[in-house]
Amino acid sequence: MENKKILLSENEMPTQWYNLAADLPNPLRPPLTADGTPITPDTMAPIFPMNLIEQEVSTQRWIDIPKPILGFLRSWRPTPLKRASALETHLDTPARIYYKDESVSPPGSHKPNTAVAQAWYNKEFGIENLTTETGAGQWGSALGYACGLVGIKCKVYMVRISFEQKPFRKVLMRIWGAHCIPSPSQDTQAGRDILKKMPDTPGSLGIAISEAIEEAVSDTSGKTRYALGSVLNHVMLHQSIIGLETRAQLKKVGIEKPDIIIGCAGGGSNFAGLAFPFAAEKIDGADITIKPVEPKACPTLTRGEFIYDYGDVAKTTPLLPMYSLGHTFVPPGIHAGGLRYHGMAPLVSQAVVDGLFEPESLDQLECYDAALTWARTEGSVPAPETTHAIAATIREALKAREEGKEKDIVFCYSGHGLLDLSAYETYLDGQLVESTLPEDDLQKSISDVKDNPRVE
Amino acid sequence: MENKKILLSENEMPTQWYNLAADLPNPLRPPLTADGTPITPDTMAPIFPMNLIEQEVSTQRWIDIPKPILGFLRSWRPTPLKRASALETHLDTPARIYYKDESVSPPGSHKPNTAVAQAWYNKEFGIENLTTETGAGQWGSALGYACGLVGIKCKVYMVRISFEQKPFRKVLMRIWGAHCIPSPSQDTQAGRDILKKMPDTPGSLGIAISEAIEEAVSDTSGKTRYALGSVLNHVMLHQSIIGLETRAQLKKVGIEKPDIIIGCAGGGSNFAGLAFPFAAEKIDGADITIKPVEPKACPTLTRGEFIYDYGDVAKTTPLLPMYSLGHTFVPPGIHAGGLRYHGMAPLVSQAVVDGLFEPESLDQLECYDAALTWARTEGSVPAPETTHAIAATIREALKAREEGKEKDIVFCYSGHGLLDLSAYETYLDGQLVESTLPEDDLQKSISDVKDNPRVE
Repeated sequence: MENKKILLSENEMPTQWYNLAADLPNPLRPPLTADGTPITPDTMAPIFPMNLIEQEVSTQRWIDIPKPILGFLRSWRPTPLKRASALETHLDTPARIYYKDESVSPPGSHKPNTAVAQAWYNKEFGIENLTTETGAGQWGSALGYACGLVGIKCKVYMVRISFEQKPFRKVLMRIWGAHCIPSPSQDTQAGRDILKKMPDTPGSLGIAISEAIEEAVSDTSGKTRYALGSVLNHVMLHQSIIGLETRAQLKKVGIEKPDIIIGCAGGGSNFAGLAFPFAAEKIDGADITIKPVEPKACPTLTRGEFIYDYGDVAKTTPLLPMYSLGHTFVPPGIHAGGLRYHGMAPLVSQAVVDGLFEPESLDQLECYDAALTWARTEGSVPAPETTHAIAATIREALKAREEGKEKDIVFCYSGHGLLDLSAYETYLDGQLVESTLPEDDLQKSISDVKDNPRVE
Repeated sequence: MENKKILLSENEMPTQWYNLAADLPNPLRPPLTADGTPITPDTMAPIFPMNLIEQEVSTQRWIDIPKPILGFLRSWRPTPLKRASALETHLDTPARIYYKDESVSPPGSHKPNTAVAQAWYNKEFGIENLTTETGAGQWGSALGYACGLVGIKCKVYMVRISFEQKPFRKVLMRIWGAHCIPSPSQDTQAGRDILKKMPDTPGSLGIAISEAIEEAVSDTSGKTRYALGSVLNHVMLHQSIIGLETRAQLKKVGIEKPDIIIGCAGGGSNFAGLAFPFAAEKIDGADITIKPVEPKACPTLTRGEFIYDYGDVAKTTPLLPMYSLGHTFVPPGIHAGGLRYHGMAPLVSQAVVDGLFEPESLDQLECYDAALTWARTEGSVPAPETTHAIAATIREALKAREEGKEKDIVFCYSGHGLLDLSAYETYLDGQLVESTLPEDDLQKSISDVKDNPRVE
């Protein structure tokens, strides 16, 4: 019997992160201030600790993972690479399907890979409090978990509608000792201003970001900083451990080079984590198809433009060089909350411009169909975000069958769906409708940013 | 750095189950009919397939695990044995704490170990439909998952109050293709009778068992059988893989014999799974303390009597030789629903009579305190049942500190608590009250069974 699971021992875990910025065919553009001036590390210092800012701007190829971070990561890493043999049989495909199971971490996703690193670097820099925002709660719970491990305080501004409607991730944060409050709140000027104007607002990620950053920069003791769970270069760096482990695991079963790499992409972090080490091989000439998969309702890479744009609606962040649907774009309320982002990580965006990746967008219903096929063959229940990677994988496996070609397909199983079962219930009840792209809104949000600085 | 995880490869997975009935100092008593006659295999034939009945009455020490069942088990097994080093540091104990992580299965507990075996044996015997009952849904979801894998139909009678108040495990069952309905239902005579008398009843496990058995035995095609998730001998047999793997994993780190084995005990299956292979060593003379842990609010082993009693309130099952609080005992509504059972597996009961185990009962609040300590050190969130094993482990680790003794403690992490977060919220809000034992009810339920056949 062939093994379902390809395991690494803890001693085989990578001890360095891989930085794609060192190998991109065209160098990454710097972030800009609103007037078009490149951001300096000092400008970022009130928001992030300097040791993370150094990683943010680094072009060094390999960066050592500090021993204490390795210790925390070993709580759940190395994660298994698994063969989806039951799905292969069901699809009657000659393709071999492997998936990197990032759902085994205590918060249930890939997010703690960067959360423990960020918490540790902040503590090392003397920071005692981290603030962040969260939508459905994946990132907030991961950072809460990490801060608990490392021993610093964590305050999470959670979008109010999610705070009220999705209580479970909030409970997780409390279990791990984090302080989670609904946003907008009375704790910040930004929150108070909004509440005065709109006392019944459901909140938004943009508002929550503004509150979390305000609290960090206004602590005059200098002991508070802000943490972001995706998009930024240092986040992509920390996630590269996913792909590095995967590469070692594939070699264990004699696969020197996979044919297809797939990951769902919202801000880009789980996709980048798996894909970047393979992108390096592609830059070196290897023939690998690498696909970020996004929802048709929020098609950043497939319909957006590569421009300088803000990371949030309120324009509190610097301008980042990235694919964007325009920072005023509000995607429909699809269940994969982690994929509802108007922008995309600059490193992923630049690699798309450079022709390294082949983005694809999928319908929500196709993704849930794929998830049900998955659960009834492989057994586990994927997060709504992860269903996009599964659906794209099934497409490729069926294509391999049509072509009669053996292929090695690897995708990132970014998280489990055990806290998203109400979405599945809606689907099983036949109530899940396709979330169509609001074309008029998209045209407007893209036109809203037409005067932003252009990338060359 | 020492490894957190002790892994087995799939090739190292046990290929035989261990049957404690072969080694008990005193032989197990047979189940009886209501008039005191020993039950014959033929009497059980309308309820269970003959291949499982053979296992139920077997005293063979080792029983081969069929290859197809090994294949299904390999979807998530071997499970990791993990070192709780962060908890050890927190407790400042010289004890080494290991836990067998059964939460990694798709349904999130040890239950599928027997569910896939039972589903497969039924299919092998030509059965096309399995019926069962479930309370909070752990067993129903495990059997639903297993029937989906094996390819037979599954119908789950879920206690109505849980069906309405705990929707998520019901969604899991639907995802895996099982048919889950609230009990009492219109589908059986037992259900219709109850609904006529008590249209608003919240239902009970006893009623649900009656309905599931009625549907199985009344299918005149002979293609339907019933499945039970705990208590019975063949269930304990299938769970022995937990302890067999653990023993192999301990040997990998040089531990020939652990000092203390701990598991929570409701019907007894996860405890037995871990403990029985070590009980065999104890029978051979090894010095091992083995502790089943139960809630103070349902203290079957610590306050019950070893008698012949029914497995359900409605007396539809045979009389089983077991510790019991009396089949009319209704424990208070503690959050660890899996531990709210008036009886205990006959094999576990007989081993207690024979002096192999040292039962302990704990307060609910101590268990949740322990769970919070666990989550804030080891990271994961345990099922309410599992918190009892953790609390008992912490007691032993602190005792080892007082005594200044190095000890190897191993417990069964029977399941995760990700679908039980509302219980944690109640606890974090300070609203979780101690569930005290209703002494008067207990005296009455014990007196209710005083005329049952006594065991010698």
